[in-house]
Amino acid sequence: MIVVMAKDSAQVDLDEVRRRIENRPGLQPQVFHGVERIVVGVLGSIPPDLKDEMELLPGVLEVVPISKPYKLASREFHPDNSVVMVGDVAIGGSEPVVMAGPCSVEDEEQMVTTARAVKAAGARILRGGAFKPRTSPYSFRGMGIEGLKLLQLAKQETGLPIITEVMAPGDVDTVAQYADILQIGTRNMQNYMLLDEVGRTNKPVMVKRGFAAPYEEWLLAAEYVMSWGNRQVMLCERGIRSFEHYTRFTLDVAAIPVIQRLSHLPILADPSHSTGKWHLVTPVALAAIAAGAHGLLVEVHPNPDLAKCDGPQSLTFQNFSSMMDQVRAVVAAVQREPVSVPSPAHRRGR
Amino acid sequence: MIVVMAKDSAQVDLDEVRRRIENRPGLQPQVFHGVERIVVGVLGSIPPDLKDEMELLPGVLEVVPISKPYKLASREFHPDNSVVMVGDVAIGGSEPVVMAGPCSVEDEEQMVTTARAVKAAGARILRGGAFKPRTSPYSFRGMGIEGLKLLQLAKQETGLPIITEVMAPGDVDTVAQYADILQIGTRNMQNYMLLDEVGRTNKPVMVKRGFAAPYEEWLLAAEYVMSWGNRQVMLCERGIRSFEHYTRFTLDVAAIPVIQRLSHLPILADPSHSTGKWHLVTPVALAAIAAGAHGLLVEVHPNPDLAKCDGPQSLTFQNFSSMMDQVRAVVAAVQREPVSVPSPAHRRGR
Amino acid sequence: MIVVMAKDSAQVDLDEVRRRIENRPGLQPQVFHGVERIVVGVLGSIPPDLKDEMELLPGVLEVVPISKPYKLASREFHPDNSVVMVGDVAIGGSEPVVMAGPCSVEDEEQMVTTARAVKAAGARILRGGAFKPRTSPYSFRGMGIEGLKLLQLAKQETGLPIITEVMAPGDVDTVAQYADILQIGTRNMQNYMLLDEVGRTNKPVMVKRGFAAPYEEWLLAAEYVMSWGNRQVMLCERGIRSFEHYTRFTLDVAAIPVIQRLSHLPILADPSHSTGKWHLVTPVALAAIAAGAHGLLVEVHPNPDLAKCDGPQSLTFQNFSSMMDQVRAVVAAVQREPVSVPSPAHRRGR
Amino acid sequence: MIVVMAKDSAQVDLDEVRRRIENRPGLQPQVFHGVERIVVGVLGSIPPDLKDEMELLPGVLEVVPISKPYKLASREFHPDNSVVMVGDVAIGGSEPVVMAGPCSVEDEEQMVTTARAVKAAGARILRGGAFKPRTSPYSFRGMGIEGLKLLQLAKQETGLPIITEVMAPGDVDTVAQYADILQIGTRNMQNYMLLDEVGRTNKPVMVKRGFAAPYEEWLLAAEYVMSWGNRQVMLCERGIRSFEHYTRFTLDVAAIPVIQRLSHLPILADPSHSTGKWHLVTPVALAAIAAGAHGLLVEVHPNPDLAKCDGPQSLTFQNFSSMMDQVRAVVAAVQREPVSVPSPAHRRGR
Repeated sequence: MIVVMAKDSAQVDLDEVRRRIENRPGLQPQVFHGVERIVVGVLGSIPPDLKDEMELLPGVLEVVPISKPYKLASREFHPDNSVVMVGDVAIGGSEPVVMAGPCSVEDEEQMVTTARAVKAAGARILRGGAFKPRTSPYSFRGMGIEGLKLLQLAKQETGLPIITEVMAPGDVDTVAQYADILQIGTRNMQNYMLLDEVGRTNKPVMVKRGFAAPYEEWLLAAEYVMSWGNRQVMLCERGIRSFEHYTRFTLDVAAIPVIQRLSHLPILADPSHSTGKWHLVTPVALAAIAAGAHGLLVEVHPNPDLAKCDGPQSLTFQNFSSMMDQVRAVVAAVQREPVSVPSPAHRRGR
Repeated sequence: MIVVMAKDSAQVDLDEVRRRIENRPGLQPQVFHGVERIVVGVLGSIPPDLKDEMELLPGVLEVVPISKPYKLASREFHPDNSVVMVGDVAIGGSEPVVMAGPCSVEDEEQMVTTARAVKAAGARILRGGAFKPRTSPYSFRGMGIEGLKLLQLAKQETGLPIITEVMAPGDVDTVAQYADILQIGTRNMQNYMLLDEVGRTNKPVMVKRGFAAPYEEWLLAAEYVMSWGNRQVMLCERGIRSFEHYTRFTLDVAAIPVIQRLSHLPILADPSHSTGKWHLVTPVALAAIAAGAHGLLVEVHPNPDLAKCDGPQSLTFQNFSSMMDQVRAVVAAVQREPVSVPSPAHRRGR
Repeated sequence: MIVVMAKDSAQVDLDEVRRRIENRPGLQPQVFHGVERIVVGVLGSIPPDLKDEMELLPGVLEVVPISKPYKLASREFHPDNSVVMVGDVAIGGSEPVVMAGPCSVEDEEQMVTTARAVKAAGARILRGGAFKPRTSPYSFRGMGIEGLKLLQLAKQETGLPIITEVMAPGDVDTVAQYADILQIGTRNMQNYMLLDEVGRTNKPVMVKRGFAAPYEEWLLAAEYVMSWGNRQVMLCERGIRSFEHYTRFTLDVAAIPVIQRLSHLPILADPSHSTGKWHLVTPVALAAIAAGAHGLLVEVHPNPDLAKCDGPQSLTFQNFSSMMDQVRAVVAAVQREPVSVPSPAHRRGR
Repeated sequence: MIVVMAKDSAQVDLDEVRRRIENRPGLQPQVFHGVERIVVGVLGSIPPDLKDEMELLPGVLEVVPISKPYKLASREFHPDNSVVMVGDVAIGGSEPVVMAGPCSVEDEEQMVTTARAVKAAGARILRGGAFKPRTSPYSFRGMGIEGLKLLQLAKQETGLPIITEVMAPGDVDTVAQYADILQIGTRNMQNYMLLDEVGRTNKPVMVKRGFAAPYEEWLLAAEYVMSWGNRQVMLCERGIRSFEHYTRFTLDVAAIPVIQRLSHLPILADPSHSTGKWHLVTPVALAAIAAGAHGLLVEVHPNPDLAKCDGPQSLTFQNFSSMMDQVRAVVAAVQREPVSVPSPAHRRGR
């Protein structure tokens, strides 16, 4: 950590900064008098509250953290890519995994026909919402446990593992009985008690990016889950809120290679929620794959204009099948990085 | 609702739009052939899923909602200002209410001295966090129930009612035993199960704005609470996430008069979390009051540089007392709007 | 245009709205009394100032434009893709065009070796800045006319046409003598006098997206150029400003298919400025191509760590050559849309 | 400047960083081996291109600037507030200055009656646009030189000095003949050639904040003007682009005290353009004054519903007069900071 002080700071203020640092076990200050600033380097393992303490001491202009606040999720901690196994499906390996299905579970026929269609087109995981976060209290909020049972039925019919969202700490145990992957939605990315609770399970967890979350806060959300011992965490870029409202959100495609540099966790992309329009889903899906995503989360519905939610962004079976053909072609075209990404310190070719 | 179609839409597409509208009980389409577009007006009480259904019909370019999706929270539904009573403190009336106290409850002495100091300076409600949402799992997360008990103690000593955050549906009953106002934090503004749960209590609720929430989603969060019958809801602008990172968030001061136009609920402001720097708290607090805020939420700590959280943005007792003097002066200077704000349709002076 | 009025508007207010519309040549109001609102449809060709006039009449809650404010740039006006020819290079056709070169022109050797290297790797257009917009007045601002001459020299050596930025109306004639494509930078996207001036030339123009410009304002900037009769306009997505600062900007990859739906103009992408980091350039470039971009604008430098600007985001010759191999593979994999994109009203497959 | 390197960086990489720093005249590296990072402090006066150079050396993870990139505009360079004199009006002193008038100059009667009305209500400067930046090429773009002449006429009638926008470097001399303050609009804040040109005049300049400009880029725009020797610069917060679109822009009220801390230049606010709605102008104006703004820029029109631009946000004479009464009351209520703001290093009260 670097503490930046005004050049004309009083000696008493500099002494106080030094004293506070020395008071902490294992920390040592190193002071440099620059042309425009006094800079105090803090050597040692920095406790998380030190930044706050330093920031409000007299004479201090700025405190610059040097280490990352997340550890378990960082590539420095774990240089090789993590691969999360869901049954025999490997997420985070060299082959992208497509998870597809309806926004919400509606009835048995819908789930089973969709499961069969997406499996036939190449999806490896079935998605479907039983507990639905909805902006308005007057919208359909999902079938709850009945929905989970229909998901299980579709799994039995097709063998596809299930990913589904859990929204409350008290529901985690129940959802975990049915789901193969627990999904944390964008609006719950900083619902810390929910993160704690899924961290206590032994189920794979997908942490969707909060729509206003910088990379660091997103990785800290993963860190919450991992800090309980659950290391089967994957991330999903699903679009951030920007000033542009033609699309529902703005998919940050650079997040894919950035996360691969900062973290060892698998990173997927959701072209459906980010765009909000079915005709944008395929180009954005291809973009994510070309950028190196470990997978996709895509909404598919047998009859989008009758869907109980997210109809405008849902693909028909035919749309999805066509998208999958193109996804396969792009996967074949792009040189996938080897499992261990080069360290940030690697040299570039000349 | 207005459905906009391409001028060259096929007759079959126009007929389908018409048919879908007529299928809904009580709805009727009205079709106009404009120069560049066909416009279909939908008359009647619009169900929330109709927009999605219309959007993906062939020929449809855009669907424009005309009514607001929130009802109970809207000023149209309830033209006069709502006043929320907390003991004998009226929130939403002509006199702004200041709620002050530490970010987190730390010990008895801290709470009691702070409660006395903020009361002496003119605060009417005591704030303090027992359950703390923290970005990092390695930060101090609050004292939990012990913290609630210390808040109660400080209330007994000073008579100040308590506002404190509740973070999980399962904690609502417990927190409600100690708190006079249940606070929904910015990261939980779309934690719908938590909103449901506080809606089922009979306690006043403060809904802080999600840091990436447009006004409409914020008012819909209030609507969640109100839809369970709990009408004692107040709102708090606490800063939105923008590209500017010198401050932690960007306080949207215009939100105060906007919310007063859209809604009858009291609207407060939090200058501490929005700025993240103690020396910005007073000017931003005065701005909020001058813009018409019904109150403030301010962090105060006996010794900010030892605070377990949010030290950099906490005021000392002396800072707070000085801020309160200026707040009173601005309150006296500004002509407060009468309890019933003029309708959006009022004429302006010439 | 739709004028939305309060249900309880006074008759005099409704009459005034009606009168104002009828006062405009060729316009007619159509009034509907809905359950919650009065809606007035305005039929005819809407003048641009009518929205402002309507918005402040008593009783009016909202005015919703139905037509797009841009015409020449819109796909409705011109259903087939536009192809801009630069010498024998077709931009906007089925084959993406890569434009590459250094951020700024520095000397003859740098320009000529770079031009040869990028040509060998498959670039079709040479980029290089002679007039450089720099955030700080103390940074290198380009070689000016001397830089233009070096660009011309590199063109003579390699045959590659030149794209270069013009920053002031008074420089347009001079720059147009040397450049094959005039580039409008992101900070000048709403420098209307500059847009006018390039509109008066007969040179192809690339309009980079302003980093806080919604699609509509971007297309209106293109409309400025086109309104002077210059139809050789292409667009370039180069990243928008978001809350995420790990990358310099956030490349909005969905902009590519969105612009192809709204407009007939070619749309390229700039992975260098959007990311600001060389190691993110290739994945983001591939994403843009997979999403359907008509080309790329990439910074390449013989020795990035000695570059006078933008070194951190510049590719070496070897990096660029490797990127081009992958670009070609993705181009081959993706089914390019035919020249005429299906209209927004087309049906989706079932 | 701080160069952060990976702990496991090769010795050759560390040596290269050191060598590059030592190559620069007057610079010296200081190396520290921390627990998780190697940190290299660079002592001396840092050239602006060093950051770029360091960032792409092998082993370098991050480069953290410690000094501010602007000098002339910074409070460190000039601890006391700057006061810009326009005739006998002092901008930046203890009394806020209100500048008011129509969005665009339309005719003599409009200008003269408005000038008289705003003067009577207490405005000290007359605003009016002769050259208008408009999003659409089809909107009214101002009267040009004829407009400047009408502004001059209104000045002769009332004695009010004039502020008006200049949009192109080639127009600066002409506009400077008529204007007392040259206004740089938000869309031109990074039109560097325009900044250069107004810097070469001896006229006061108002630099409006670019709607996506962080404080640092805004102050660097002021630095451009000042670097030519023109020190009569003032700043104006006019709203930033956020995800919220109910208002045209989001006024960042905290910018006022922040700028006063970072810079010695006067800081004003524009409640008209930021909100886009006349009924929000007064509360936002009062907020800016309460936060310490040195003045306001407000749009006033004799008949807003006939205004050629910005009618919806323009105040009538009566609205403006009422706003001014409240502004005076708030000014009287707020303790204005003394001319010299306490340094960032000052102690806070206990």
